[in-house]
Amino acid sequence: MPIRAAIKKIKGGVCAPKGFHACGISAGIKNPDDPRLDLALIYSTHPCNAAGTFTTNRIKAAPVKVTQAYMKADSIQAIVANSGNANACTGVQGISDTRKTAKAIAKGLGLRQRQVAVCSTGVIGLPMPMGRIEPKLPDLIAGLGEKNGEDVARAIMTSDTCKKEIAISLDIGGHRVKIGACAKGAGMICPNMATMLCFITTDANISKSCLQKGVLEGVETSFNRITIDGDMSTNDTVLVLANGQSGMPPIKRNSKECKMMRAAIQYIMLRMAKALVRDGERVTKFVTVEVKGARTYNDAQKVAEAVANSALVKSSWNGNDPNWGRIIHAVGYSRAMVREELIDIHINGKSACLGGMQSKTSMKTLRNIVAKDSFTITINLNLGKAEYEVYSSDLSPEYIDFNRSEYAYWKQARKDGLA
Amino acid sequence: MPIRAAIKKIKGGVCAPKGFHACGISAGIKNPDDPRLDLALIYSTHPCNAAGTFTTNRIKAAPVKVTQAYMKADSIQAIVANSGNANACTGVQGISDTRKTAKAIAKGLGLRQRQVAVCSTGVIGLPMPMGRIEPKLPDLIAGLGEKNGEDVARAIMTSDTCKKEIAISLDIGGHRVKIGACAKGAGMICPNMATMLCFITTDANISKSCLQKGVLEGVETSFNRITIDGDMSTNDTVLVLANGQSGMPPIKRNSKECKMMRAAIQYIMLRMAKALVRDGERVTKFVTVEVKGARTYNDAQKVAEAVANSALVKSSWNGNDPNWGRIIHAVGYSRAMVREELIDIHINGKSACLGGMQSKTSMKTLRNIVAKDSFTITINLNLGKAEYEVYSSDLSPEYIDFNRSEYAYWKQARKDGLA
Repeated sequence: MPIRAAIKKIKGGVCAPKGFHACGISAGIKNPDDPRLDLALIYSTHPCNAAGTFTTNRIKAAPVKVTQAYMKADSIQAIVANSGNANACTGVQGISDTRKTAKAIAKGLGLRQRQVAVCSTGVIGLPMPMGRIEPKLPDLIAGLGEKNGEDVARAIMTSDTCKKEIAISLDIGGHRVKIGACAKGAGMICPNMATMLCFITTDANISKSCLQKGVLEGVETSFNRITIDGDMSTNDTVLVLANGQSGMPPIKRNSKECKMMRAAIQYIMLRMAKALVRDGERVTKFVTVEVKGARTYNDAQKVAEAVANSALVKSSWNGNDPNWGRIIHAVGYSRAMVREELIDIHINGKSACLGGMQSKTSMKTLRNIVAKDSFTITINLNLGKAEYEVYSSDLSPEYIDFNRSEYAYWKQARKDGLA
Repeated sequence: MPIRAAIKKIKGGVCAPKGFHACGISAGIKNPDDPRLDLALIYSTHPCNAAGTFTTNRIKAAPVKVTQAYMKADSIQAIVANSGNANACTGVQGISDTRKTAKAIAKGLGLRQRQVAVCSTGVIGLPMPMGRIEPKLPDLIAGLGEKNGEDVARAIMTSDTCKKEIAISLDIGGHRVKIGACAKGAGMICPNMATMLCFITTDANISKSCLQKGVLEGVETSFNRITIDGDMSTNDTVLVLANGQSGMPPIKRNSKECKMMRAAIQYIMLRMAKALVRDGERVTKFVTVEVKGARTYNDAQKVAEAVANSALVKSSWNGNDPNWGRIIHAVGYSRAMVREELIDIHINGKSACLGGMQSKTSMKTLRNIVAKDSFTITINLNLGKAEYEVYSSDLSPEYIDFNRSEYAYWKQARKDGLA
């Protein structure tokens, strides 16, 4: 049975599965006068099996380094996350601030320090305003509740314009299981994990190794397939916590149930990944770039990513311009094996380029498709059988305008005595 | 003696060296009502030794394929170039149109067809409007003159806002030699040859092999070091013609004179490359990204290119934001070997980041530097001795706006019955 048929969408997010509590509050991390939620806590009433994956950027934020170490040493039972400051490039102080936060949360919840994962997102290079964060940690614990999942989804937002959360239920081996998730993205979205955080919770009884396999498979076909601006962050983190509270017996390794569970995680991640692209910074279009007929998987990936990341191609989409000439020029510089005279390009199934040359489809027809807020570019190299798919967006003048300056952050940091 | 001391800048461009004639006219290639120059011819009164280098894009325009073949078979004595249409992705028709153009020019000049290089730049995927080009070719030949170098510089412009030409003289082995050049760039500028054309002429008596060595060395440190938007075109071409008319004896291989000549070509190319960045599409700043202390040359290159191509970094420069956090995050995803705690970043010699953390330099000082229209970012990885340098620019909202649509070209092509 395909996984979609087994899945039922339900209300809520990370608190939908049994035994997960959450809280989101405002600590004024960016700015003491800003009332937006920016500090979040997810807590499982029972110990969890946990799995995760982290940025491949060689410059990793302090919370990434600390959480990676904690996950090796202990089983995570809580996640504390903040937006507004990435705690990246903050040296020994950054590590110490992260540990201090984990320690305070652990103490308040009766956990060991290494059971608390820490995640941050925001501006790079400024020390954390711990003077504002530390006094708020007791409030964060006191505010924990079964219905606050949405507050977590909101508290991790940076330049996101809307919260992203999802929850599903499905029957696995006769037992009702729930999975919930929230994510944030917006800028710096690129293949291989961009500035994004995604927290997934489930009450399934699934082993750490099976969960880890599910995370790797899932990320490969979701968060690693999205690109907004070609940048990759210091803080990307995907964490999955499974607390087994559904009452089901343990899922056996490599069983049908294990596969089903992994497929469900993959489904959740793909939904979240697509939501990140749709809410990319000043994005107006969702574009699927589909490559077929490549000689190798690696070639298919190179072509898809070159097209999906080209500033010129993305600019043309922003202008409703079905400019296949720019697409094929990106195909050409992708370093994949291609033969110009074999390349076909279709837009929502209508041919734009056949055998490396313009097709007979009228420009008006193609323009009407590209004017939509969502369409698919299919590039067939006609050389082999390998395929790859990437989810991309346009690039708008407003994106640049939006990203011209983070100076306001620095001004606040100076006020705080941190810069 | 350093080459700069030996060089004297003189007036003019490709016609400055002895024996070079030129012409630039308007053929209405983009649009029959557009009076801008768009068709150019450079002609040497005597046979030339020629060298060149071409786009590494796997999708090569018809004139690139044809000219590459001609250069292997014969010695180039004329270059015919057009702007407004790239003659790329135009199949057999494109090849035939290119050959037809070379043939007509050759006939008019009394040359063999393979002595005529053909270069095009402009929109991809539309057939050449030969109906407008062919009738103009006799005018192009008739208009040849010793003072028309500037017209060639103007006729090859696309989205360039100003002509780029240069001429120098220098004494080599007691003989006065002249070198002239013109170039066009503007968009799609990226390391490894972007959409750019550069024609260099000289009256030096230099062998083909020595010239080719000079071209490869020169391109490596000039046109391969510039980046505006990370895109790479189908049409890039650098051609050097040497006709020996200065009256000097042949320059010997590996001699001091040969080295001096190569250094002079390198100087010309670097000047032209920097001019392309300065006139990049809607560019407001010229930024040198200098990487030092890398473990390997390859690592230094990766870091420089990652920083110089990052949309987020370039956006921040546009906003006068000395955002070293975004720079170090690009360093981290460059895939080069780096150690966060060793990285220093300076802006015009003022430290922004030391040992991977913010330095004590005030933001105001750094902001004043980045507000200038030209500055240097120095990234020291402190791991080894390898260095690399790239010339970059900011990315402006106006760039995207400018590149949103080429629809007007298609409308004209439809009128011409070509689309």
